[in-house]
Amino acid sequence: MVGLGSLRRAVVSFEEAVACVDAASSRLGTERVRLREAMGRVIAEDIRAAASVPPDDRAALDGFAVRADASLGASAYNPVELPLFAATAGAALPPGADAVVPLDAAETNSPGHIQVVEPVAPGDNVERRGAVAAAGTPLAASGVRLAFRHIGMLAAAEIDTVQVVRRPRVQILLAGPMATPRAPDSNGPMLRAAVERDGGVIAEVTTLPRARSSLNTALAAADGDLVLVIGGTGPGPDDHAAAALGELGELVFHGVTMRPGETAGLGRTGGGVLVVLLPGMPAAALWSYELLAGRAIRRLGGRDPGLPYRSREVTVARKIVSAIGMTEICPVLLGPGDTIEPLPAFAEIGLRAAIDGAGFVIVPAAREGYPPGAVVTAYLYDEV
Amino acid sequence: MVGLGSLRRAVVSFEEAVACVDAASSRLGTERVRLREAMGRVIAEDIRAAASVPPDDRAALDGFAVRADASLGASAYNPVELPLFAATAGAALPPGADAVVPLDAAETNSPGHIQVVEPVAPGDNVERRGAVAAAGTPLAASGVRLAFRHIGMLAAAEIDTVQVVRRPRVQILLAGPMATPRAPDSNGPMLRAAVERDGGVIAEVTTLPRARSSLNTALAAADGDLVLVIGGTGPGPDDHAAAALGELGELVFHGVTMRPGETAGLGRTGGGVLVVLLPGMPAAALWSYELLAGRAIRRLGGRDPGLPYRSREVTVARKIVSAIGMTEICPVLLGPGDTIEPLPAFAEIGLRAAIDGAGFVIVPAAREGYPPGAVVTAYLYDEV
Repeated sequence: MVGLGSLRRAVVSFEEAVACVDAASSRLGTERVRLREAMGRVIAEDIRAAASVPPDDRAALDGFAVRADASLGASAYNPVELPLFAATAGAALPPGADAVVPLDAAETNSPGHIQVVEPVAPGDNVERRGAVAAAGTPLAASGVRLAFRHIGMLAAAEIDTVQVVRRPRVQILLAGPMATPRAPDSNGPMLRAAVERDGGVIAEVTTLPRARSSLNTALAAADGDLVLVIGGTGPGPDDHAAAALGELGELVFHGVTMRPGETAGLGRTGGGVLVVLLPGMPAAALWSYELLAGRAIRRLGGRDPGLPYRSREVTVARKIVSAIGMTEICPVLLGPGDTIEPLPAFAEIGLRAAIDGAGFVIVPAAREGYPPGAVVTAYLYDEV
Repeated sequence: MVGLGSLRRAVVSFEEAVACVDAASSRLGTERVRLREAMGRVIAEDIRAAASVPPDDRAALDGFAVRADASLGASAYNPVELPLFAATAGAALPPGADAVVPLDAAETNSPGHIQVVEPVAPGDNVERRGAVAAAGTPLAASGVRLAFRHIGMLAAAEIDTVQVVRRPRVQILLAGPMATPRAPDSNGPMLRAAVERDGGVIAEVTTLPRARSSLNTALAAADGDLVLVIGGTGPGPDDHAAAALGELGELVFHGVTMRPGETAGLGRTGGGVLVVLLPGMPAAALWSYELLAGRAIRRLGGRDPGLPYRSREVTVARKIVSAIGMTEICPVLLGPGDTIEPLPAFAEIGLRAAIDGAGFVIVPAAREGYPPGAVVTAYLYDEV
């Protein structure tokens, strides 16, 4: 557990930064929502069947409901005449019936009766009461993220509402323009989309004048579950993010041995709202979001905190270079036979390395990269 | 290409059914949307950078903008005094400057000037005009589904709107209750969620009285891109789905050698709207949606038509039994060391096999199942 009490801390390692994120973000409280609006939500209770599913014996196919013992000895040469009770697949059997004769195993020449030409045994073509789930059967455990198959099963068990983890409310504060001519803001749209991917709800996106007083005011007024401050994290005279947070609340760390994303930070406002500081350079904003802020949002919302990409063991085809002492995110292309090769770094070509690449490799701080032939874990963007 | 001209066709194989779905569903037209609303959409144009990104030379870190040749020979013992031009990371360099001196490589004791203590070369700590993307660089190809990293890159290139594939509009017609007591409708909520997962927009969900005339009226009035008719696909006297479609439009097939889902069908209304008939039994509705209707929706929307689950080679630990002549979807549990074993079939425990299982195996019609030790492809629900 990393305490949140210090006013200002030194640069932390990437692993320490992740530990701080984890210590500062635990699953939010819950709310009750209608099942039909619960797709993708994380349930916060163990759900069991309140009653048997189905609640009674039902026809498993279209045919005629019968008492099985009355069909004994039936054949094409010796049809047995029984009263006609049409049974549609899914319909409850009438009282006394315990089997269904399929449509093609009976004749219907005489009104109100059928001629059964094949005997059936009790339970034949019947979906028994409780066959899908007996009363009390666990249907979904707390922590499960509801897919459409769960929605179907819970609806079949007549569950109308479910208790789910609240969606994290996220406020985005963009440190205002410093460039002349003003640079287009790519961080606002990008991070809005990222927060939504991770199940957060954007409460507000605000662009602040690049002044300490503006940031102070915004942080003092912050509410919600998480504030992302974008930009103003560097060491320059117009960079106020860390100082403002340290003054108004707690700064847990400022500076991480990760690249891109060296100037990321973490803290809380005086009001106790979790704050992640993201560098303003777009590739640094992307990666500090993905590895730190996104992780916090996923944890708050009860999701798997890990990176939401498939990972795979691959072989390095061309040397990957990284700086020793820095955990470096290296964009890679996927080659034939599960091989990868590096793209130019994010520091050189910015976000384009994220859209041209098939994925990325995270090189630990202790390594200077990987030689050809090394087997490493690659995260791949677009694979199912 | 399978023609859509016949009035009624015999039962088709699973592979033929998929071919019919593919022949009947091609990518929809396009629409222009704002970039910030384009997350998850499939783009329908090749997007290139209209101008250089960034549009000018910019500071890559916080420091001071200088003409590099003026810093020649600078050292701690021989500081070179230069005019002070603060350069914040991301800000355009002032005219004449071609390098940035980092904050810690200069002193700022005299007002309006800096003392440079380390020389810089032209381009040092500068992000060059066009470094991220030169004008004309391809940024995203038609068919790409936009993730948040694309939103960031396109926003950086000052792209405000994008041409995307229209989302398929889907109408759901539920064949009304036949069971007494009425069964809870699990298909409506389940399929609504499924359509949304696949990028469709639910235009309407209607529960119809279980009468041929109601279905005829609804099909005659259908619009949108796809109609799902749920229930009424069987051979019973209250099953009108296939007959109504055949009468009012075209029935391409009715009946597929797949289980669950034998009574699924495909056709078009007289107005030309694609219609998929799904059986009403919930597990059959789920699988005929997933393998046929969902595929159509994914194709209409320009997405990857394949199953949206990760697949993996696994080893069968306990015999999997299936009916020869039927493509059977078998629910499986995942065991240690990438092994699987079967759960009770969907025919026995319905939707519960989909929520208790880790995934499923599709056993081709020609096989009666798989013996222990067989290596097969399993689709897994919840893996990233």
